[in-house]
Amino acid sequence: MYPSGFQSYVEPGPLAEPLCGARRPGHFRGVCTVVAKLFALSRADTAFFGEKDFQQLLVIRRMAQDLNLGTEVVGRPIVREKDGLALSSRNAYLSPEERQGALGLWRALSEARARFKAGERDVAALERTATGVLDQHGLRADYAELRDPIELRRPAAADETTRLLIAAFAGKTRLIDNGALGETG
Amino acid sequence: MYPSGFQSYVEPGPLAEPLCGARRPGHFRGVCTVVAKLFALSRADTAFFGEKDFQQLLVIRRMAQDLNLGTEVVGRPIVREKDGLALSSRNAYLSPEERQGALGLWRALSEARARFKAGERDVAALERTATGVLDQHGLRADYAELRDPIELRRPAAADETTRLLIAAFAGKTRLIDNGALGETG
Repeated sequence: MYPSGFQSYVEPGPLAEPLCGARRPGHFRGVCTVVAKLFALSRADTAFFGEKDFQQLLVIRRMAQDLNLGTEVVGRPIVREKDGLALSSRNAYLSPEERQGALGLWRALSEARARFKAGERDVAALERTATGVLDQHGLRADYAELRDPIELRRPAAADETTRLLIAAFAGKTRLIDNGALGETG
Repeated sequence: MYPSGFQSYVEPGPLAEPLCGARRPGHFRGVCTVVAKLFALSRADTAFFGEKDFQQLLVIRRMAQDLNLGTEVVGRPIVREKDGLALSSRNAYLSPEERQGALGLWRALSEARARFKAGERDVAALERTATGVLDQHGLRADYAELRDPIELRRPAAADETTRLLIAAFAGKTRLIDNGALGETG
């Protein structure tokens, strides 16, 4: 995919700046470049991306539209274990203890949804709820932020479409999860 | 071509850094982005670009290969007026006096070729020759540089394939021209 002399990249914009983009410099540039190449090579009509990587889904969809690559990018719901842990290839790296702690991402999301359902609309308060649950599970929060689901901007107040996006470390393994506050998990 | 929310760009690499890239920040990013969109939309097998914009030709060819856009980029020789001036839509902006002066680009190229043919291999000396001819024609040199024709690096010594690339202002009009030292014009 990257022959000698390779030097042209697809650079995403503001959608790639917060969240994982802020913590992993160049990550979405690499993702966009390789996915653009795959779309150009395959000329696929449709490509499905999981919503677990929600920011990635938005960044890639925008990129495919912006560059007229002809591939429609469709999001698919997160698939979870019975106890709620989002499926991820990284889950294989977790020790049994870390696997228990990893449930904190799902529980943080569930607790924020419960507080939202109970009437809480304050963005910082809902984020503190999520961070608190991560702490209780021995997870090191990378971020736990509320964002609108279109442009990933921080909303003035939470509504049903507002998305909680979480990244946290279980030991050395970085896990992510997310969901809309108005959904029931 | 640029709908609301557009934010993804094609960013070229080292080929776009010197010469016009150094003088016109963001220029080749814009060129690469719109050409990538056109290639993706058209799915053209082949696209022809003039060698007058030699750096642009190399940058676009590299970009189309790097992103697997499926369009072969082919260069075509510079077309010149009878007196040597390279055809350009910008020539229409020239006053009669500026049109006379504009010949300096071609004459600088011709003079450098003559000096090369006479045995001169020193890069800086050949560049000074070109700059001197531009001066004599009342042109303000933006650059007059020798580069290898593959990676646009400054060579240790000139050879037949070495390209002289020139950008100069005739009044407010910026003109460019270029050619290999070993060619006869």
